[in-house]
Amino acid sequence: MVEQIEVRLGEYKRGFHLITNEIVSQLPELPEYGLLHIFIKHSSAGLTLNENADYTVREDFETVFNKLVPENDPDYQHTLEGPDDMPAHIKSSLVGASVTIPITGGRLNLGTWQGIYLCEFRNYGGSRKLVLTVYS
Amino acid sequence: MVEQIEVRLGEYKRGFHLITNEIVSQLPELPEYGLLHIFIKHSSAGLTLNENADYTVREDFETVFNKLVPENDPDYQHTLEGPDDMPAHIKSSLVGASVTIPITGGRLNLGTWQGIYLCEFRNYGGSRKLVLTVYS
Amino acid sequence: MVEQIEVRLGEYKRGFHLITNEIVSQLPELPEYGLLHIFIKHSSAGLTLNENADYTVREDFETVFNKLVPENDPDYQHTLEGPDDMPAHIKSSLVGASVTIPITGGRLNLGTWQGIYLCEFRNYGGSRKLVLTVYS
Repeated sequence: MVEQIEVRLGEYKRGFHLITNEIVSQLPELPEYGLLHIFIKHSSAGLTLNENADYTVREDFETVFNKLVPENDPDYQHTLEGPDDMPAHIKSSLVGASVTIPITGGRLNLGTWQGIYLCEFRNYGGSRKLVLTVYS
Repeated sequence: MVEQIEVRLGEYKRGFHLITNEIVSQLPELPEYGLLHIFIKHSSAGLTLNENADYTVREDFETVFNKLVPENDPDYQHTLEGPDDMPAHIKSSLVGASVTIPITGGRLNLGTWQGIYLCEFRNYGGSRKLVLTVYS
Repeated sequence: MVEQIEVRLGEYKRGFHLITNEIVSQLPELPEYGLLHIFIKHSSAGLTLNENADYTVREDFETVFNKLVPENDPDYQHTLEGPDDMPAHIKSSLVGASVTIPITGGRLNLGTWQGIYLCEFRNYGGSRKLVLTVYS
C-alpha cells in the first residue's frame, strides 16, 4: 500500500535545519511496518539525516560544506544565477535529494540522535516542495 | 506490487550526463502512486538528480569532482587500474549507486529543474547496467 | 509485503569494512522481486556500496575521507566529543545512512564488484544498529 502527499516547508535561510517535527506533524497515520520516502523537488537544496541535539553541529555543516565546494571558483561556467548557485547544485548531489526511513510500530525508527535535515544551499531558496511517500 | 527490469545504457564518456529520457522511454506503464528505484550495478559510476537545463552545470560538476578527489595522489594504494580508477570509486560513493523518485498520477514527480544524471567517473567505463524497480 | 528486522553489527574499528556476508546471513528468505533497504541508526557512521575485492580500496577510502573532512579544523564549534566526532557527522552525510538494493530471483542483485560497506567514522564507535526492510 502506498500513501503519498506533497507538502511545502516554511522558508529557511541558507544552512542546515532540523525539520523532523515539521515532517512528522504532516504525516498520515503510519503503518505498523513500512518505509517513509522523503523527496525534495529541487536541485539546489537537499535532505540528510544527522545529529539532532546540538545546533553547533548544523553550523559546522555549513562551514565544512562551504570549504568543500567554495564559491567564486574561476573555473565555474554556470555563474549567471549568482555565486551561491553552482556550489548549491554540487552540494545537493553530495547529500542527495531524498532520505528513506524505516517505520516500526507506527513510528519513524530513527536512532536516538538522528534527525531530518533540510540542507538549504541557496541564499534565498524560498519555500521548498517535498513529496512524502509511505510504503506498507 | 513490484515491477522490475534490467537495462543497459548507451556508452557515455567520462562526465555527468542527463539520462532522464533514456530512462523514461524504457519504463513500463507507471502506476497512479508509487516509487521508482534506479540502481547502477557498478562501483566506479553513480546516479544523482540535478539541474536539467544548462549543460555547463554538468561540465562544472566534472570540474568540481576532479578537484574534490584528485587523481595521482601519492597516498593511493589502489593504482593498478589506472589513475582514474580509485577516484572513480570515491566519487561513486559520494553521489551514490541509486536514486528513488516518487511516481504521481502515472508520471515521475520530479521538480521542474530536476533530471536524472549518469555520473561516469571512468575514462572508458563502457555500457553501464541499471536495474529499474517500480513500486506501487 | 514488508518484512523488517533490527540487527546489531559486530564492533569494527574506524575505517571502511565489507559487511555483505554479515548482512546476507541475517536476511529472511528473499522474495522473487523486491528491494532491500538497509538503514543505520547513527549519525557518525554510514553505509555505501563499493568495490568488494581489493582491501586497499577500503584503505584508500579512509585516506581520502580524512583529507576531505580533516580533524582539528579551528573553525569547528562542536568539539566536546573529540576531534573525530564532527568530521564523522559530516562524512556520514556524504555517504548517507541507507542503501537500497534490488532483489531479483530471490537474491540481492548487486553488480559483480559491488559490496556493502560499513563506514565507521568514529575511533570507537562500538556496535552499530541496523534496520533491514525487505519489500516485495
